[in-house]
Amino acid sequence: MNVERLRSAFPIFEQGAYLNAGTNGPLCRAYATAVNGELEREATEGRSGASYWARLSQLEGDLRTRLAGLLGATTNEVALTRSTTDGIDTVLSGISLAPGKVVLTSDQEHPGVLGPLAGLRSRTGAEIRVAPFEELAGHVGADTGLIVVSHVSWMTGKVAGLDELASTGVPVLVDGAQAIGIRAVDVAAIGCAFYAASGQKWLCGPSGTGVLFVKSEWIDRLGIPRPRYVTLEEHSDPLELRPRPGAARFDSGELSGPETAASVAAIELLEKAGWQSIYKRSRELATSLRESLGSTAVAGDDSSLVSFKVEGDPDAVVARLDEHGVIVRSVPGRPWVRASIGAWNDERDLQRLTDAL
Amino acid sequence: MNVERLRSAFPIFEQGAYLNAGTNGPLCRAYATAVNGELEREATEGRSGASYWARLSQLEGDLRTRLAGLLGATTNEVALTRSTTDGIDTVLSGISLAPGKVVLTSDQEHPGVLGPLAGLRSRTGAEIRVAPFEELAGHVGADTGLIVVSHVSWMTGKVAGLDELASTGVPVLVDGAQAIGIRAVDVAAIGCAFYAASGQKWLCGPSGTGVLFVKSEWIDRLGIPRPRYVTLEEHSDPLELRPRPGAARFDSGELSGPETAASVAAIELLEKAGWQSIYKRSRELATSLRESLGSTAVAGDDSSLVSFKVEGDPDAVVARLDEHGVIVRSVPGRPWVRASIGAWNDERDLQRLTDAL
Repeated sequence: MNVERLRSAFPIFEQGAYLNAGTNGPLCRAYATAVNGELEREATEGRSGASYWARLSQLEGDLRTRLAGLLGATTNEVALTRSTTDGIDTVLSGISLAPGKVVLTSDQEHPGVLGPLAGLRSRTGAEIRVAPFEELAGHVGADTGLIVVSHVSWMTGKVAGLDELASTGVPVLVDGAQAIGIRAVDVAAIGCAFYAASGQKWLCGPSGTGVLFVKSEWIDRLGIPRPRYVTLEEHSDPLELRPRPGAARFDSGELSGPETAASVAAIELLEKAGWQSIYKRSRELATSLRESLGSTAVAGDDSSLVSFKVEGDPDAVVARLDEHGVIVRSVPGRPWVRASIGAWNDERDLQRLTDAL
Repeated sequence: MNVERLRSAFPIFEQGAYLNAGTNGPLCRAYATAVNGELEREATEGRSGASYWARLSQLEGDLRTRLAGLLGATTNEVALTRSTTDGIDTVLSGISLAPGKVVLTSDQEHPGVLGPLAGLRSRTGAEIRVAPFEELAGHVGADTGLIVVSHVSWMTGKVAGLDELASTGVPVLVDGAQAIGIRAVDVAAIGCAFYAASGQKWLCGPSGTGVLFVKSEWIDRLGIPRPRYVTLEEHSDPLELRPRPGAARFDSGELSGPETAASVAAIELLEKAGWQSIYKRSRELATSLRESLGSTAVAGDDSSLVSFKVEGDPDAVVARLDEHGVIVRSVPGRPWVRASIGAWNDERDLQRLTDAL
């Protein structure tokens, strides 16, 4: 991989050490070029008419196919969502839990997952059982109806034992926000029923984009919680609720041409750098940072998220680092700061962080 | 109003007669300028850090305030959504219908409304009763728990008698997709409980934007069907589900800076032209077109949507008009074609349509 070529695609690295792709990824130049190409087309040709709809459909298909490839899924199993939360919520709103079945989740889940879980509980009365992230498999029992867990903990960077969880036979809904685009994901090998992830983090796409994998055998079993114009098969009698074939029935709504083109452009850039090279480089840099941080580093496996203990108010530390051109974030409720390490980072970024600390 | 100034703000009118704002509005130059300003900022400063969040919050507040003003609502009563459908769905998913209560809707509702209604029926077993658009008030009875109706019919351009419906005391959920930005809307005067509308139609904003008015007395009564990171008040214990104050708890999710800035820029352009002038001019042009069309025009009140009967396949007519640089759409299930008349249109556009017919 040509690191300098990848790095120079992102203007932010001329300014400072951006280490927060775990919130929002850096924006590459090709992103703005793609947006402008679509905006020009839409402004001069209009957002209607045969060629507009054909173009939108082409962009949609292109994005869905690339995301399917990245996840190890078929295109038929991929829904285009607005966020990880959106995908999580689609599953939690569409699934039918048998009476007495509880939802098992971990103590390291993101509010974007816990919010929808609380929503499920308030709607249906379902019990939400919380167990330690590292010990989740030990808490799977006969009454577990669904497991909801992060592939990579957004707090510690710990990696879940997804294979073990899926092998229990209980359907697993994975929050892949901190995995897609930065470590290998193979939903078929994992054996999970559902996998929700974000477009704006490690895939460097627009805010308000995401993806949901629904395993083929679940497509017809899951209810359609949010029927939309674009998720219905035909519109002469929508009250009949005939959904589109495949997981596209779970799409969140009409796509924006510029945003979809930007998603594709960013993924294309990363594809060219090579996913395996990206995963490997991120892992190596993160390991190197963990070593430099020594005992302040929070145990976090080999993921791209490196959390570390700080003295005093973590938000004050984040603000001070910001002034030094180092962008990181705090971890709510813990005395920790988190750095997100992408393949676009280099040793200078890590040095800048450790110097500023 | 300076018509040439407004018209020249939209590049599309150099190309042809764009008459489909009822699907997607034309894009103004200020839209692309706003998008590029934000993209440049995000690419060079990153989508994280104090100044990024402050900027996003400022854009969010600006958009919410402008939309509140346009609807005659308080800022506290306005949620930022992804579409009209999204707002409709939020209300249908959050409302509790007493046992035996039915939902009354019309025979001229959009699939984006009927889909969510079908979803409600499949989830809760609620009965959906369909009555003629023009006779809806006569069908309100003791068992009516909610009325769902368009302000302006997307098929005929007919305008609903919302005051009469609201005066029944039954909560009214209005689909305002074909009203906001092109005719006067005053939710307080109407007396409706909920009003959902689109950003990408008459407000000329991005696809994937919308607004939902929730009357203040309904904010705490409506459930929170889709809790999100940005709709929770705090994140230390999200399972407690403490929502943000006001209708912001019903926001659809995190906003995109470029899209929010584009929404604001487009609304600003229209504000400068003057809403009352926009409403008046659209009404006059639409009336003029109805007169030219004579007996082929479908009866449609004084709205900006003009549907008319055509010989043969409406989609073939739409395709033929497209070749002549006239963009309109067909009405599914009817032998009609629909033209959307904005204040940016002029007599030349109407002439071009009638000549090509």
